[in-house]
Parts: sequence; C-alpha cells; structure tokens
Amino acid sequence: MKNSKLVQHYYLGSGSIKNLEHLIFSKKNQDKDFVVFVIDHFFKNNLILSELPVNVNDLTLFADTTDEPRAEYIDDLVSIVKQKKQLPVAIIGIGGGSTLDIAKAISILLTNPGKAEEYQGWDLVKFSPVYKIGIPTIAGTGAEFTRTAVMTSKIKKLGINSDHSVYDQVIMDPDLLHTVPKDQFIYTAMDCFVHNVESLRGRQNDAMTIAFAQKSLEMMKDIFLGNMDLEKLMVASAMGGIAVANSNVGICHPLSYGLSLVLNLHHGYSICIAMNQLEEYYPEVQEFKEILRRNKIVLPKIINDDITDEMIDKMAEATLNNERPLENAFGPEWRSIFTKEKVIDLIRKM
Amino acid sequence: MKNSKLVQHYYLGSGSIKNLEHLIFSKKNQDKDFVVFVIDHFFKNNLILSELPVNVNDLTLFADTTDEPRAEYIDDLVSIVKQKKQLPVAIIGIGGGSTLDIAKAISILLTNPGKAEEYQGWDLVKFSPVYKIGIPTIAGTGAEFTRTAVMTSKIKKLGINSDHSVYDQVIMDPDLLHTVPKDQFIYTAMDCFVHNVESLRGRQNDAMTIAFAQKSLEMMKDIFLGNMDLEKLMVASAMGGIAVANSNVGICHPLSYGLSLVLNLHHGYSICIAMNQLEEYYPEVQEFKEILRRNKIVLPKIINDDITDEMIDKMAEATLNNERPLENAFGPEWRSIFTKEKVIDLIRKM
Repeated sequence: MKNSKLVQHYYLGSGSIKNLEHLIFSKKNQDKDFVVFVIDHFFKNNLILSELPVNVNDLTLFADTTDEPRAEYIDDLVSIVKQKKQLPVAIIGIGGGSTLDIAKAISILLTNPGKAEEYQGWDLVKFSPVYKIGIPTIAGTGAEFTRTAVMTSKIKKLGINSDHSVYDQVIMDPDLLHTVPKDQFIYTAMDCFVHNVESLRGRQNDAMTIAFAQKSLEMMKDIFLGNMDLEKLMVASAMGGIAVANSNVGICHPLSYGLSLVLNLHHGYSICIAMNQLEEYYPEVQEFKEILRRNKIVLPKIINDDITDEMIDKMAEATLNNERPLENAFGPEWRSIFTKEKVIDLIRKM
Repeated sequence: MKNSKLVQHYYLGSGSIKNLEHLIFSKKNQDKDFVVFVIDHFFKNNLILSELPVNVNDLTLFADTTDEPRAEYIDDLVSIVKQKKQLPVAIIGIGGGSTLDIAKAISILLTNPGKAEEYQGWDLVKFSPVYKIGIPTIAGTGAEFTRTAVMTSKIKKLGINSDHSVYDQVIMDPDLLHTVPKDQFIYTAMDCFVHNVESLRGRQNDAMTIAFAQKSLEMMKDIFLGNMDLEKLMVASAMGGIAVANSNVGICHPLSYGLSLVLNLHHGYSICIAMNQLEEYYPEVQEFKEILRRNKIVLPKIINDDITDEMIDKMAEATLNNERPLENAFGPEWRSIFTKEKVIDLIRKM
C-alpha cells in the first residue's frame, strides 16, 4: 500500500506568480544565499517573465527543451550549479513539463551522489533534495503535481519516480498560459485527458485516484467542448497529475514513449498521435477526436515510407518495455494480450 | 491570495492503519523517544484498536469528547505531555473530528508558549508544531484535511486556524468506520455534505475549491442516495475538508455554533438541525432531507418551551459573531440581509 505524497503548498489564480518574491525572500537568510531559476529557453528574452525577482547572486539556467530531458543534460546543468560553492536555497522551475522535470531532477542530483541515470526507476533517491518551487507555463502535463521527473537516456525513457521529485510549492498562474502556441496548447492539454482515461481504465486505482481522474476528465470536457477557462484548466491538470501519480498510465503512454524515443517527438504530440488509434481500448477516444476537430487540429500520418521496419521494431520494443503501465491496463497476463504483433499493427496506423 | 496547504502524505484503504507501526518506527531514533496517542475515549477497552503499536514509553491520552473541545481541556492535556522531560516525536490523533482537533491543538501547544485560547483565531501560531498523524474513525468532519482545530472557550467557538494545524500524515482506513453508531454516522457525513454546499454557494471559492466541493458533493449523493462505499466516503470527506479549508463555510455553520454553544450539542447533530431549516438559501437541502428520510433519521424539534428567549438571543449573537462565513454567504452587506430578527426566526423553527 502506497503512502501517497501531495504537493504541500499551492497558489492558484491570475497574478499569483507575484508571490514568488516573498517565497524566495523567506528562504534567504544570508547575503550569499542564492536560488536557481530553471526556465524554459522559450522564455529567453520573453517579456512575460521580465519581472521575475532575480537577484544578482542568483543563477538562471535556460533549459533547452528542444528534445525531451536527457540524463546527461541534467548532469551538465547540475555541474553548473555545483560551481557555486554552496547549495542553493531553492530551485525554481518555470516552464512546461520538461522544464519542471529538469528542475526536479536538479534538486535531487544536488544532494544525491552520482549521475542522473542512476536514479531512473522507482524510489532510488536517498537524500532530501533542495527545496523546489514549480511554476507551470502550460497546462496538462501534471508535472507540477507528480512524483516523476521524466528523463531519457540512450536506451530508455524512464523517469526518476520518487517522493523527492514532488514540488514543495506550486504556483498556478493562468496568465502564463497565454504564451503557449495553439497546437502545443491542445497537445499538452490532451496529455491530461489521456492521464485521466488511462488512470480510470486501469487496475491500480483507488477511490481517491478515481475521484481525481473523474473530476479532471469532466473538467477537460467542460473546457474543450464547452467554455475555455484557464484557471479551471490548471486545476484539471493538477488533479490529473495527482490521479496518475497515484495510479498509473496505461496503453497510450508506452506507445508514445516508443514514438518519442525513435522519432524524437515531443511528449504531448506523440501522446495525441498514439491516442488517436486507441478507440478499441478507450471509448473516450471519441471525445478526444471531437476536441481535436473543434480545435481544427489535424494529426498527420507520421509512420510513412521514411520509417523503416527496424525503426518500427525499436518503437514496439520501447513500448513493451513499460511493464507496469501495461500490466495496469491489461492485467498480469498482458504479454499474451498486447503482443508485439499487435503493437506493430497499432504503430503502423499512426 | 492564499498559499493553500495540503496534507503531505496519506494512506487510503482497508487495513491501512497497519502502516502506523513503520511510520512511528521511522520517527524514533533513540530509546527514550516516545509518541503520544490521542484517542477518542469511545475506544477505551474497544478491541478494534487493541493492536495499536503502543510502546511502553509512549503516552496514551483518552480524549473526553462528550463536549466539544474546550481550550482549558487542551491546556490540561498539554500539561500531562509536558511532564515527560522531552517532546514526543509524534502526536497521533485517532477518533472523530473532536479528537483529531484536540491532537492538532496539542501538537501546536507543545512548541508554542501560552494557553490554547491565545491561538483561537487566524494565523496566530508562530513555531512549527510536533509532527502529527491523523487517523479518522468517522467520515465527514474533514478534520483530517483542514487547517482548523475547532475549539470553544467560555465565550466563543473559534478554532486555531493555521497551516500548523494541518496533519503531516493521514491514514484513511474505512474498516474503522464500522465502529460508528448509525445516527452519528449520518450526522457526521452530513457535515461534509454541508461543507460542500456552503463552499460552492459562497463567494470565497476558486477553481480548485469548486472542483473539490463539486466532486465531494457528487460522491455524497452517490453514496447516500445510491450505494454505500466507505472508502469513497472517506475520500469525499477529505475532499470536502480541502474545499472548505480553502474557501469558507456559509450560513449553516454559524447557526450550528450558536446551537452547540448554548445547548452543548455535538457538531454534526447541530449542523443537521440547522441545515434542515435552510432550504430558502440552499436548494440542496431537498437532497439533504431525502438522505435523512432514506436513513430513517427524524430530527426532533429542539427549540421547545424549555428554551428561554434569553437562550435564543445568545444563540443568535453567537451565530452573528461569525463574520467571515456570513460575509462569504451574503457578501459585505451581510448584516443588512441576515439580520438578528431573521436569525432568531430561523432558530425558533429548529
């Protein structure tokens, strides 16, 4: 039985990012104390974050999120922070899921020895991390409320799954969402939609995760088939994150990992490509398609003549490496149901 | 704008109380370390808790919950704990809302100077309390997830409202609910029902509290007008607690405080007596009445000939002392809407 961990503090609402200043202030006791900002490189020279309370001592790292976070990249960023002769009093992640996950990983690697890849897996982190604040600038990843710092190494996409990955403080300011390009906004929101479906249709849930996933899914439908409400969307993302963090994903995430690993696709996009073919497993795919239609999103066929059989084989292998989610979806006999042949068949349709 | 605090860890599920042992074990570093159990006196000599992991060094306080927690009673219990020459490593509250609130208050008073009544109010606690674990044995109060330790002194019913009142760890084990007598089970569950209605119909809510209150209310209806599910009920209680802790109560709680103060009634019961007369403000009272009917609960008329005008006047005054909830319900001009005459009129019907 799991001891579920929640984010301890959150601000929610328009303008709530202004609270960052006093949060940082309360952590700094001495002149030499500093914080590390980990900001999505998208915001370099972007005015929306120009009013951040950055002090001359602080360190700002613009996280390159062109690709999904790689373990070696985390190690590089940690080395930069370690050039300072003391630990920061806070790590502040500002961005999408990748940036939030990079900040989580840095907070852990600063107090735990070795390399990032050594912590890919479940509950491998030993020492308390640096205090961290998460500020999402896109809604849907749930990264602001989960215990996972997603990460890829050369051979696998597997996060640092640990209570130590959970943010101490989250600030959900819907004003920040205005920065997101339309397509990416939808792809990322659909990540939340999929979290809820996979959590609800899996076997590893309980009354709490079911309540969170049901409410989050209901809110997603209200928002995308009814009225857009950015604050509500941030809450749906948070609740979807809590649901999936305490249950598990299912069929769609493993397939998307295969796509992301081989074709270097961003998570939200590959989630949408995969979900689009899963109607036989998830009836909610109908609503998912309706949401895409209403938002004039047309998903291209990405498995075309340029994709070799070898690449597809690698995608299928990467998909089938995700034992826990697939057991959650199909039960202990999942290998006899979700065969490699079946997986390749699904991938070819994408 | 509020920095909302959540319980950091929770266990949920049948048999989850067994996790108490390793939680305590992880806190004890030295032989002389001890924990304080604060247990509802109802459980004295009750077998259901006979397997608690109590060590010879530990201190067990059976909390007398005949009346609502009084500030002086808290002080007495704190004195007993202080006879030990060191602080406990944990306070473990096991019981209903009163017991959980007493345990919260003790954890605070052990590290903050002065008497309990000095902390009645909002954000008056200065120092971090002793680590605490809350184990509800009845569902609905939400006390396991709120930032309030309800308390009465001679002149007022006003809790210790503080982030320091929030439990560090909660264990929600539905098996414990089998101990509750039927009537009390319903009265306490209705406390949660009312939390949700007051939160949703108030003005001080946001997208998060609305989502929690809506989901909790929906679950309460599922449970009491559909199928009883104790694990689900514990989740509904928790979510109602989070909702009300981060928004506010409305009309029903102030009225119930007046009843409790003058007639010494238990919270859940006085909540039901008050809610029963509030259909003009809350349409959900219809469903509330339907739930009582289905459970064969008939509320007596408690304002009878034995109740003097002076007592009713005192109840009305105690009701109108609750400025924050009443402003939440009616807006800043609440005094001109919810007049003393109106309050007395409502009370006379109860």
